Amino acid sequence: MSVLQIKYIKSSDNVLDLGCVFQMLRDWVAIESDSSNVQKRPELHRMMETVAQKLQLMGGTVQLVDIGEQELPDGQTLELPKVVTAQFGNDSSKHTVCIYGHVDVQPAKLEDGWATDPYNLTEINGNLYGRGASDNKAPVLAWIHAVEAYQALSMDLPVNVKFVIEGMEETGSNGLDAMIMAQRDTFFSEVDYIIISDCGWLSRRPALTYGTRGNCYFFAEVEGPKQDLHSGVYGGTVIEPMTDLIGILGDPSGKILIPGIREAVAPLSDEEWKMYQDIQFDMDNYKNKIGVNQLMYSNKVDLLAHMWRYPTVSIHGIEGAFSDPGTKTVIPAKVTAKFSIRQVPDMDPAMVKKQVTDYLHSVFAKRKSPNKLKVTMVIGAKPWLADTHHPLYEAGKVAIKRVFNMDPDLIREGGTIPIARTFQDVTGKSIIMMPIGGFDDGLHSQNEKMSRYNYIEGTKLFIAYLNEVSQIKRTSV
Amino acid sequence: MSVLQIKYIKSSDNVLDLGCVFQMLRDWVAIESDSSNVQKRPELHRMMETVAQKLQLMGGTVQLVDIGEQELPDGQTLELPKVVTAQFGNDSSKHTVCIYGHVDVQPAKLEDGWATDPYNLTEINGNLYGRGASDNKAPVLAWIHAVEAYQALSMDLPVNVKFVIEGMEETGSNGLDAMIMAQRDTFFSEVDYIIISDCGWLSRRPALTYGTRGNCYFFAEVEGPKQDLHSGVYGGTVIEPMTDLIGILGDPSGKILIPGIREAVAPLSDEEWKMYQDIQFDMDNYKNKIGVNQLMYSNKVDLLAHMWRYPTVSIHGIEGAFSDPGTKTVIPAKVTAKFSIRQVPDMDPAMVKKQVTDYLHSVFAKRKSPNKLKVTMVIGAKPWLADTHHPLYEAGKVAIKRVFNMDPDLIREGGTIPIARTFQDVTGKSIIMMPIGGFDDGLHSQNEKMSRYNYIEGTKLFIAYLNEVSQIKRTSV
Repeated sequence: MSVLQIKYIKSSDNVLDLGCVFQMLRDWVAIESDSSNVQKRPELHRMMETVAQKLQLMGGTVQLVDIGEQELPDGQTLELPKVVTAQFGNDSSKHTVCIYGHVDVQPAKLEDGWATDPYNLTEINGNLYGRGASDNKAPVLAWIHAVEAYQALSMDLPVNVKFVIEGMEETGSNGLDAMIMAQRDTFFSEVDYIIISDCGWLSRRPALTYGTRGNCYFFAEVEGPKQDLHSGVYGGTVIEPMTDLIGILGDPSGKILIPGIREAVAPLSDEEWKMYQDIQFDMDNYKNKIGVNQLMYSNKVDLLAHMWRYPTVSIHGIEGAFSDPGTKTVIPAKVTAKFSIRQVPDMDPAMVKKQVTDYLHSVFAKRKSPNKLKVTMVIGAKPWLADTHHPLYEAGKVAIKRVFNMDPDLIREGGTIPIARTFQDVTGKSIIMMPIGGFDDGLHSQNEKMSRYNYIEGTKLFIAYLNEVSQIKRTSV
Repeated sequence: MSVLQIKYIKSSDNVLDLGCVFQMLRDWVAIESDSSNVQKRPELHRMMETVAQKLQLMGGTVQLVDIGEQELPDGQTLELPKVVTAQFGNDSSKHTVCIYGHVDVQPAKLEDGWATDPYNLTEINGNLYGRGASDNKAPVLAWIHAVEAYQALSMDLPVNVKFVIEGMEETGSNGLDAMIMAQRDTFFSEVDYIIISDCGWLSRRPALTYGTRGNCYFFAEVEGPKQDLHSGVYGGTVIEPMTDLIGILGDPSGKILIPGIREAVAPLSDEEWKMYQDIQFDMDNYKNKIGVNQLMYSNKVDLLAHMWRYPTVSIHGIEGAFSDPGTKTVIPAKVTAKFSIRQVPDMDPAMVKKQVTDYLHSVFAKRKSPNKLKVTMVIGAKPWLADTHHPLYEAGKVAIKRVFNMDPDLIREGGTIPIARTFQDVTGKSIIMMPIGGFDDGLHSQNEKMSRYNYIEGTKLFIAYLNEVSQIKRTSV
């Protein structure tokens, strides 16, 4: 694939029908594939079948892989969404890349403050608004369109392309680890490189991502009376679970108080410090974007370091308490705080689970409360880190130069792509993260969007990248 | 009305059709008259019209009194539910009682843990389950049926009976104070006594209530980023509103830390202490009922005192944070804690508002957070206290003796009937609280119920009480 051909695609003649491209994203966004809401599970199954059908229509060898069931907190079980695998090309003289993506999404409701229906893709000023548009439906579609572009041009793919598309990423990729292990010596045995496009740029400059944080997500449930009580009638007599819960969440300063966690963090090297200094990052722009006048740190290196390579704790909310508008004079009987701690090298989720559980129980014990505390770690995803000088990254730099005519930022990601670490540990293959999402796409937030520009130019980048990967010398795997 | 006639009603022949009595409660419970949810306002209007129609059909002189609009936190206005006033009898030689009640309810959803649909009255083992069954729809209907019983027996009412039925009690009786003041010299000028039946017994023994706590309900809103953020991407860089909010809620021990509040509480007198000692109250039963093995205090007097005559703080929940089942890795942008402080003599809501607001702002200021704190007091209801030797109470004791053949407990109420204090201050009339709800009715909670026994025997009590009130000597108003 030459630059000329990329330009040809740029003119959008014949190669890809942009109307169809946007309609496909609209169709995918319309499926409420929220993996955290068990009531939406049928939608999620439908999503996986839609992906499989699309890849089959393109002539891929497609499988819907059964990955079993998940156990719910109440002990019930629920069928996991099948994982879609697909293969295009089987030429042993070529490299084989495996593209990983996910088509499940975070929860979204219009009432959360969306300007448009989150499941009705809506274009405003060149941006396509919808839940999952950037995370991760458009990037998955961009890879599909990249394969379609070669097909439309009647060109052989420069590398064999495999797909692994899952539907549980937003809740910790339940079942995928086992599936990768089970297929290590079959589906994954011929794979040379793994490509993930489940993140975003840091600025308007394209980026390659070489690290992500992991995530340990906890439920801390305090249970007291057998049902909710009237706060007038019972206030002053019962030890309220909400009081206990707020009490053990402590006086969080934003710093992590749990012993052992900060000690496990790898020290910041001089090289890393220098690298951060060179990154294009506008603090004022960042502040404006999120609408705050002060950040946790006031200089770029500290801020980037705490975004990427230090752990952090966020309290997401409380289930079981009164959360609607208006007033309700209730003493909630069972309340569950949801919080998560982002993981970085050299933290170990199993150790974090123990540290957090022990700490909360010890703080709770001091309260001498008759209520019951239960701490559960529902997600335990490890961090991931790559070498930016690997040929995969060099090929990425060339492809970005071709399409965007500039060098990429080399960045890390504060968020989690749980499966990156598993791919690395199980398959031993090299991984690259090649984002096409914009820096302001609003992932997990209201008004998530994907710009037309990033979607189309991102598709071109993928087309070019497949070509660059084919140039990598066999020896350098 | 003689004991014989009460017995006549007991046999339920002809006087009141019990089928109709239960169907009416079913019809009223089916109306979702949730006054705290602005989206249910049409239902609330329908509820008030239903009450007015019923009283009109009975031959009362009925008015639907416009009490204006309420201002919502976002600055919009919403029409308040009209207040229903009615009058039966206009004989100047008789006493005139005014019965106050409310037909709005607390929020309820099946998902909150109800065993049956909260808006479909369901009988199980002699209990009638439904939101508002006990608080306060069945007691209002029992008063209506008491008047109907006299009508069915073709007997003149022994006293003139007026009704004031409102639809905003659960959110602080918005608009009613002004209406009472406006009609002080008209509707209320001929009223001798005010009767309220918006509370419950303390045990299986019938009770008369001589005091209630007030309530100051607060919203503490912390606002930070302009929208929700991904906790992976932004965790570690922004000062999270949820962290600030949990931080200023402090490490609540269940005690009130706000300076000035405990100092305002009237001291416990020896007489009061003795009175509490004599009250029938089973601590173990109380613990079993709510399903806890330890209470805030382990002796009866302390417990009753903290239930009735000391202030308490309850944190009801947080709006704006993630409160659904499942996981969501979000940093909520704007979170509002909802908590309330029960008021007792000699606390002053205006002072409490200042104390709470000043305290939270001073704690928040120490955090040096860039986020914004806004504290609002949305309900400010005063406590109320009566003299248990007043003729109204003596008449109540006699009526209870007649119907139940025992002496009542003289109790206070931890909850709030905001309007009691207003009636006292504005009209200068004497008030009695005569509950018919059971001690285990689950007000404001899941599975609220009214027993058939309390509903029917309560109706008889009201029939007998109207007769006893007519015996009060003119001089003792």
